[in-house]
Amino acid sequence: MHRILCVLLLGATGPGLAADQLPSWNDSPTKAAVLDFVRNVTADGTEGFVPASERIAVFDNDGTLWSENPLPFQVAYVFDMTRTLAARDPEVAANAMVQAANAGNVKKLLEGKHHDGLMQIMSLTHAGMSTEEFDDSVRHWIESARHPRFGERYDRLTYQPMQELLDYLRANGFKTYIVSGGGADFMRVWSERVYGIPPEQVIGSYGRTEFKLTDNGPVLTKALDHIFVDDKEGKPVAIHQFIGRRPIACFGNSDGDQAMMEYTTINNPHPSIGVIVHHTDADREYAYDEKPKSSGKLFTALKDAPKRGWQIIDMKRDWKTVFPSTSQH
Amino acid sequence: MHRILCVLLLGATGPGLAADQLPSWNDSPTKAAVLDFVRNVTADGTEGFVPASERIAVFDNDGTLWSENPLPFQVAYVFDMTRTLAARDPEVAANAMVQAANAGNVKKLLEGKHHDGLMQIMSLTHAGMSTEEFDDSVRHWIESARHPRFGERYDRLTYQPMQELLDYLRANGFKTYIVSGGGADFMRVWSERVYGIPPEQVIGSYGRTEFKLTDNGPVLTKALDHIFVDDKEGKPVAIHQFIGRRPIACFGNSDGDQAMMEYTTINNPHPSIGVIVHHTDADREYAYDEKPKSSGKLFTALKDAPKRGWQIIDMKRDWKTVFPSTSQH
Repeated sequence: MHRILCVLLLGATGPGLAADQLPSWNDSPTKAAVLDFVRNVTADGTEGFVPASERIAVFDNDGTLWSENPLPFQVAYVFDMTRTLAARDPEVAANAMVQAANAGNVKKLLEGKHHDGLMQIMSLTHAGMSTEEFDDSVRHWIESARHPRFGERYDRLTYQPMQELLDYLRANGFKTYIVSGGGADFMRVWSERVYGIPPEQVIGSYGRTEFKLTDNGPVLTKALDHIFVDDKEGKPVAIHQFIGRRPIACFGNSDGDQAMMEYTTINNPHPSIGVIVHHTDADREYAYDEKPKSSGKLFTALKDAPKRGWQIIDMKRDWKTVFPSTSQH
Repeated sequence: MHRILCVLLLGATGPGLAADQLPSWNDSPTKAAVLDFVRNVTADGTEGFVPASERIAVFDNDGTLWSENPLPFQVAYVFDMTRTLAARDPEVAANAMVQAANAGNVKKLLEGKHHDGLMQIMSLTHAGMSTEEFDDSVRHWIESARHPRFGERYDRLTYQPMQELLDYLRANGFKTYIVSGGGADFMRVWSERVYGIPPEQVIGSYGRTEFKLTDNGPVLTKALDHIFVDDKEGKPVAIHQFIGRRPIACFGNSDGDQAMMEYTTINNPHPSIGVIVHHTDADREYAYDEKPKSSGKLFTALKDAPKRGWQIIDMKRDWKTVFPSTSQH
């Protein structure tokens, strides 16, 4: 009787009690596990309850919140920018690594122990400018560039079911973070608009900037010193550095997310959940795991999933729609 | 008429309209400037309005939120720990730098280009243990150690007027951050309890940890690699790295805070404020600026303050009380 009254009174405003909060998800064990977990940690007075301040959820970005094919989107940005710079400056155009980039020859860029080619390209496109100049460049690119297969803006190729999950977790008091191998500065330009995740909750790879007070005011110049790569073991390291406490929910899609999945779920004093997006849908998106054409290798994390109790999102089975409905495919 | 009605209806719940939100502050130009600034940026529909998501306020810690004399409190922790370790282990006790630390000989510790002595002491007290072990050690110390002059727990020597300011800013939609030269891991142990500032809003100096999955679960081990010193030009660099947008309010007390004060207030597209705590009260706390006995040198920032429009808190003039009333002096 009491419970029915609660349901009636709270109605559509009580998270979890309302109609389906994850409408783009088919009913599946994975969806049920996520809903159970959230119900459990938000049930005040029970053993599994976690105070809101400790409800930290971390999400990989490429392949977890948006697509990463045919190339991670930031690499598409780098190649587009390299082409633009080469068209503007003959000296840049004559650079062998720029030519490799313009030919899409990723293999050549990655040659050598220190990936000298890639570093040259990164230094052209990600350093030597102010943080504002870089932001403007990314903003302009994301408005104008289109995905080669879907013909859409890249920021419209986020996963609708994951967008719903972000909203659902936040409605239940979670703080949602991106923890991605992508560049922090690159993602922060659009993360708040696209995911509702503010810049201060975006953790990514970064180089240290340099501060100068100039006649035109303070300037932070992007550099490639002290580069931190936010991937694999770097992810829990970055989580400690930026957040300072263990997450209780982790969402990823590749072996690069395995360490943060372990950090989240193994021996956590709180209840916790780890979820892997498995790309199984070549028709609507892409299908890959241990031998991806681009990034996103998923082998050891998938192998360990049963032992660790990690949930698998089978994209083909679990998602009613993949992209937001504004996208036309 | 309409305005009076609003005041009546909002009463004590409307921030800024209620009774004095900063009761430990005497009326002064500085208090008025802070109140004006907050009224200005929260007045929806006016030119000075700043959306809540961009109301970032950054606070130095040592000398701004709590005392830094006779030594920065984290240095007191280091010296106490060195003594404990030396009592436990004859080999540690025989170390010349440990002996210098135990004699309070800071000068010897800072000798040489790389401050080898200090690094040895830091490596004994801040590295080689798990993040949990370090947290436990800091927690135990802060419960047991007492300040040599005031006889109080160190975490009771925060400034009551600044505590009120933190609350006041948060009640007006600000996100409050610490940006301190102190160690992030050291401050995060108690920042939420003491200041209401959660770990993820504490930015400080740090070394990179190392992640390992052991038989007992995931472990992050503290190391002294890739040390980042969050002071001077490092502060705006860290603000960009951790927050990713410019603050609109900055509170500091030394030349080490000048760069972040400049970053906050010069050519900021939003209204902004910079405030310097000037230690002028030897009776109730300490009096120092350009020649401090410990840390907290304040010379160039004070000199530039009029030109930059930075506000000065004259501790003796502006604060009714210095420490929370639970402290008995």
